[in-house]
Amino acid sequence: MKKTKTIVQKYGGSSVKDADRIKAVAERIVSYKKNDTNVAVVVSAMADTTDDLIELAVKIAKDPTDREMDLLLSTGEQISCALLAMAVRELGFESVALTGFQVGVLTNKEHGKARVHSVDDKRLKKAFKEGKIVIVAGYQGITEDGEITTLGRGGSDLSAVALAKAIRADVCEIYTDVTGIYTTDPRMVPEARKLKEITFDEMLEMASLGAQVMQARSIEVAKRFNIPLHVRSSYSKEEGTMIVKTASKIEDIAVTGVTSNKNEAKITVCAVPDQPGISAKIFNAIAKAGVNVDVIVQNVSHTRKTDISFTVPKAELPKALEAAAEVSAKIGAGEVLHSREVARVSIVGSGMRSHQGIAARMFEALAQAGINIEMIATSEISISCIIALDKVDAAVKVLHRKFALDKG
Amino acid sequence: MKKTKTIVQKYGGSSVKDADRIKAVAERIVSYKKNDTNVAVVVSAMADTTDDLIELAVKIAKDPTDREMDLLLSTGEQISCALLAMAVRELGFESVALTGFQVGVLTNKEHGKARVHSVDDKRLKKAFKEGKIVIVAGYQGITEDGEITTLGRGGSDLSAVALAKAIRADVCEIYTDVTGIYTTDPRMVPEARKLKEITFDEMLEMASLGAQVMQARSIEVAKRFNIPLHVRSSYSKEEGTMIVKTASKIEDIAVTGVTSNKNEAKITVCAVPDQPGISAKIFNAIAKAGVNVDVIVQNVSHTRKTDISFTVPKAELPKALEAAAEVSAKIGAGEVLHSREVARVSIVGSGMRSHQGIAARMFEALAQAGINIEMIATSEISISCIIALDKVDAAVKVLHRKFALDKG
Repeated sequence: MKKTKTIVQKYGGSSVKDADRIKAVAERIVSYKKNDTNVAVVVSAMADTTDDLIELAVKIAKDPTDREMDLLLSTGEQISCALLAMAVRELGFESVALTGFQVGVLTNKEHGKARVHSVDDKRLKKAFKEGKIVIVAGYQGITEDGEITTLGRGGSDLSAVALAKAIRADVCEIYTDVTGIYTTDPRMVPEARKLKEITFDEMLEMASLGAQVMQARSIEVAKRFNIPLHVRSSYSKEEGTMIVKTASKIEDIAVTGVTSNKNEAKITVCAVPDQPGISAKIFNAIAKAGVNVDVIVQNVSHTRKTDISFTVPKAELPKALEAAAEVSAKIGAGEVLHSREVARVSIVGSGMRSHQGIAARMFEALAQAGINIEMIATSEISISCIIALDKVDAAVKVLHRKFALDKG
Repeated sequence: MKKTKTIVQKYGGSSVKDADRIKAVAERIVSYKKNDTNVAVVVSAMADTTDDLIELAVKIAKDPTDREMDLLLSTGEQISCALLAMAVRELGFESVALTGFQVGVLTNKEHGKARVHSVDDKRLKKAFKEGKIVIVAGYQGITEDGEITTLGRGGSDLSAVALAKAIRADVCEIYTDVTGIYTTDPRMVPEARKLKEITFDEMLEMASLGAQVMQARSIEVAKRFNIPLHVRSSYSKEEGTMIVKTASKIEDIAVTGVTSNKNEAKITVCAVPDQPGISAKIFNAIAKAGVNVDVIVQNVSHTRKTDISFTVPKAELPKALEAAAEVSAKIGAGEVLHSREVARVSIVGSGMRSHQGIAARMFEALAQAGINIEMIATSEISISCIIALDKVDAAVKVLHRKFALDKG
């Protein structure tokens, strides 16, 4: 007996933004439905629906409860999944639309950012048996108590991955408005090349470093359960980028991509007394102010005083500065300096684990281009430099060329 | 111990049409919430929401499945109930929004016009115990299999009555844009008087005879379980009209109201052979064409041929004429005549059961006004006359005066 293939497809809000786009997506979906292929589709709310609903809620209540917000916002995906199922049936294919609770997406009780416990496969398998294409409302689930929850920004990605895990899908396709993951942003570097594949770890670095294609949590889940992801465009049939556990090439290439982030601001707390527990005091204060710190650098101290620098999102700079000034006074540190004129450039690649000298090559390339490095941070598979904001485009280009990313 | 009062309120789509109206309704709701009063509210979709969703569906599919339509349309009430719960909480009152399935409105599987089997009272009682105002999404329920259903046009009325039954509410208030039930349409007769009360039976006759205030099915359910209804305006605090099992006056008044319907057309099948089963043949044919017949008159036959007249909604006249012509030929009857220039005027009153001579007084009043009666039909508590369309306004006025309805 021939093995039946199972695919999960996820379409974002811009892919289903109006009646015509919904019909176009339906055409694509049915082109994948063959006798030996089961198709389950996860769909986001039509573009703008969620924002419109939030706007209404804000008119009515200053601080709406998370529970009622979830009840409200989950309707967006319920609408798009019902409409998409109608569009699929209109093309002559059996289909069934299912909400989060109907498909059995069980979550914890954290409204607005619920975590998925499990997805029931019974309803899906029954529908597949009946030859139906299943259209599932993304972004939502239900608690044991029957409360509707939502999974947070980008939650439909997570719905798709959790569904793919439940039905042991062969692949989970993520449809977006780009054709895949690129070695760097093609708007900055025209020679940027679409990657055939990338590892989960690399993708996680890319995502957290500014390449906003997929929600990070859903990549983590896909990695944990080894569900191959295929990021591709809903506007073309072109193959996109596979996100996989291990690259298929025998030898990893050293660097897979270059990313940048212009949304950083730098804070330096000067003349910090070099005592145990001092950094903890500073970063506790920053965290309490609700600020996400990104890169942290503390210089090795030869005197009894040291400078501590870190970056925060530009929007959070005022909050962060206030907290930093307060804690600086408390611990007897000096001035608090800051700059909005910084940016981060990073290189990412699983191959760094086994290749030596990558960092040196990166610094060399930046130096040759006359770009000064203000801070450096590294992870196992990435190296980031904080540089002047007006140099970041040049830095990305230079690094892309240095590591021959246009050559593949 | 003092008995706790329980009230159910139902607000229609125009009462919650925008953020400001939702806030106004919330103010009204909390004014009823006292320590010794439990309040459950059933809400319809914000005006236009349902029509907008239908318009989207029609763009996508010629003949959308009822199941997916229910999934789609039920979002309208889910949105309004979430928003209304937020608005209530904003005023400092605890509240909880519940969808049809969360409140346990169990229905049969007839999508688009499901019948309510039962309403669970557990969730509601729990919320009352916690001092919460409960806001329920109207118009919707769920089947045993977890399928979302809707209850048909006016279904939120039915939700409210079924809820009131489940929690043994003391009263079920139906909020509309009119201040109550009138002796006749105040736009036609300025002296029309708001009724303090009306019986279920009278209201059912009024509803089916053209007074479009409440869905007939929900009145039937309220009658069966003897749930007092209070029809009133969401724009004022004025008392409306109570709909009750038995009028509180010891003696029924003969006539409670006058209604009219200008949406009728008359068909006459001439020279029908007077044989057993002939009428059945005609009306089976009309029914098969999907036409609702209203008044039927068959004259007693002195010859072997008779004329059969009946009325149908104007919109269904073409279908009805086609079916009538076909069946007329088949049974050997004569010409099929029709007129769009007719209307119905009716008087309604439980008192007719015990008062004699009501019909005679009606005919007399019409005769005095020079109005010719084309057809007559009676029920236990109503008398209807089909008259010329251009005479109907005069007829309503004349009858309203004849039965002294402005006097109360």
